Amino acid sequence: MDYPKRIARLQAQLRRKKIDAFLVGQPENRRYLSGFASSDHSIAESSGVLLIPARGRVRLLTDFRYKLQAEREVPWAEVILYPRGLLALLGELLPDLGLAKLAFESHYTLHSVAGKMQGKLGEKGIALLPVEDLVETMRQVKDEEEIELIRRSVRLNEEVFAEIYGSFTGLDTEIDIALAIESAMRRRGAEGPSFSTIVASGENGALPHAVPGRAAIKNDASLTIDMGLILDGYCSDMTRTFVPGQATARYLELHRLVRKAQLAGMAAIRAGVRASDVDRAARKIIADGGYGDCFGHSLGHGVGLAVHEDPRVSSRNKKQLRAGMVVTVEPGIYIPGWGGIRLENMVVVREDGCENLNSDTTWLDI
Amino acid sequence: MDYPKRIARLQAQLRRKKIDAFLVGQPENRRYLSGFASSDHSIAESSGVLLIPARGRVRLLTDFRYKLQAEREVPWAEVILYPRGLLALLGELLPDLGLAKLAFESHYTLHSVAGKMQGKLGEKGIALLPVEDLVETMRQVKDEEEIELIRRSVRLNEEVFAEIYGSFTGLDTEIDIALAIESAMRRRGAEGPSFSTIVASGENGALPHAVPGRAAIKNDASLTIDMGLILDGYCSDMTRTFVPGQATARYLELHRLVRKAQLAGMAAIRAGVRASDVDRAARKIIADGGYGDCFGHSLGHGVGLAVHEDPRVSSRNKKQLRAGMVVTVEPGIYIPGWGGIRLENMVVVREDGCENLNSDTTWLDI
Repeated sequence: MDYPKRIARLQAQLRRKKIDAFLVGQPENRRYLSGFASSDHSIAESSGVLLIPARGRVRLLTDFRYKLQAEREVPWAEVILYPRGLLALLGELLPDLGLAKLAFESHYTLHSVAGKMQGKLGEKGIALLPVEDLVETMRQVKDEEEIELIRRSVRLNEEVFAEIYGSFTGLDTEIDIALAIESAMRRRGAEGPSFSTIVASGENGALPHAVPGRAAIKNDASLTIDMGLILDGYCSDMTRTFVPGQATARYLELHRLVRKAQLAGMAAIRAGVRASDVDRAARKIIADGGYGDCFGHSLGHGVGLAVHEDPRVSSRNKKQLRAGMVVTVEPGIYIPGWGGIRLENMVVVREDGCENLNSDTTWLDI
Repeated sequence: MDYPKRIARLQAQLRRKKIDAFLVGQPENRRYLSGFASSDHSIAESSGVLLIPARGRVRLLTDFRYKLQAEREVPWAEVILYPRGLLALLGELLPDLGLAKLAFESHYTLHSVAGKMQGKLGEKGIALLPVEDLVETMRQVKDEEEIELIRRSVRLNEEVFAEIYGSFTGLDTEIDIALAIESAMRRRGAEGPSFSTIVASGENGALPHAVPGRAAIKNDASLTIDMGLILDGYCSDMTRTFVPGQATARYLELHRLVRKAQLAGMAAIRAGVRASDVDRAARKIIADGGYGDCFGHSLGHGVGLAVHEDPRVSSRNKKQLRAGMVVTVEPGIYIPGWGGIRLENMVVVREDGCENLNSDTTWLDI
């Protein structure tokens, strides 16, 4: 990855906005700009922040526990430890470097932390400027190197799905399948799942975010598997719904309706189209089929270093899609007491349409 | 769990503070007060918030995807959906209910979200009050029902460790062992690991938060395994370091020093002692042994619904420990280029000492 180029683009923006330096702690933004691959245990337990001045050298501020990893992964940055905490270090470092106007990620800084920063750094004459989505906006449009990494992540995810799909015994529980999937992901080289694998059988399929349980999979019930992995930092995300045994006529009818909606969504995608129009194209199919009330979530979301990122493909996002964006197309129908069907692919937005990244066709066109 | 009692205690505090209602979105706080067990994909993607008025009925605000789970797990609360987002719902609901002063969790609300709340709700005449750690403070002292759940979590974690420890082949990689551990956790009924399992061999042991890699475990190198699981919501956390083959004299010397520090830390614990004094008791042993610079993190942390919670057992926490707190005692020595040793147990603070929750003694007293 060309980190210096990304840093230079960001620095040019900082100079335009008259910002002296930008503090980047959001884990995917940090990785996008530097390659530092550490995750954070939680937003309150950071493994480090990048201090990016409008001009000059980047510093990676971290603590003792991440020193070796930081030096190994970001050899071109100066790694500085903060044994007395980040704020204490910034209070000394910023005046030393003559940085008087510091931007921070308003959308990844806790309200309480921002308050303490404003207090402690304000005393030292440093002005704090909240900014939102500066790096996220850069990340929305992927270059071909990133798209190739996403392609590999999708491919590996499909290989894992194929392995598991081929090994059902009829005795598995939802948890067994989820475990087998996540083990296969890591065995095949993934950093891990990109989210907690969803395996929902029968009525549980009516919960879009079902947690795998201990009930045995019933052969004639539908099975929704929503799975994704992280490979070299980049995420994949795919959902398939199928019936291990004999599907009912109603299942087949609804499955075909969801697939038709997915195809309509994919057909609507190209650079320049509003995200909300893509959502509407798919939603109309389900509504026309009489199930509009059963599709309660948006059609899709961006995927990259994060498995859920902008752009959202929803009725509320009126912005145009741009070439190089990577989004999911995942309509669903959920009926409490009956179950649910969701089908999810990932596509790259291109000038004249979209490139479907998924080649798996299990139970798509039935 | 006696959720009504917890809610009543919190409501009494709200009335004392003249707060009309409190919005609770931090996942462990939410679970502590209601039993709603859903996790959040990220802080920006909440699966719901509790609206707790100073008097009267609790409401659980969530979206379509979590409706069934919310109704199932929190049948005594009113579940309300926010199809147009939380802020839009609050803007209608709060005036309807006559709630004019709303407290929010400053330490679990993004700066950008707090700004939008203050803008949109301010227009409706609602005053926002940031509060910190109100529920976290309640959570620090566990009742015996919680301690029993933590005990079971610790016991299951030790059973998993014993299973894995007994099955080394000498051909494993760090990743293989981590995978085997996390699979065994779920197979034995855990909700999942309470953090990403650390398996660090040889030099990697010098990274306290090492990420498991693909290198084969060397028989004569040290191996650090730091693992924990979640059972019925409650976390465990244990570290063992050992040498599968023949340990060197230096390894044995340092291992004994770390164990001596751990025992000194545990011996210092009882209700009324400052957390910083416990940290110092253990740290002194390592410093006196000549390795003070090699123990760069604090001695321990609270464990409960979260694997890292207050109280911190560190030189910076001057507060007294209280009976019913559950903390880790985990000194370590880390030497770049050589490796590391960390030993971690969990204890309950009691009036007259501490109760060690770990019965595993693998490679402790050698």
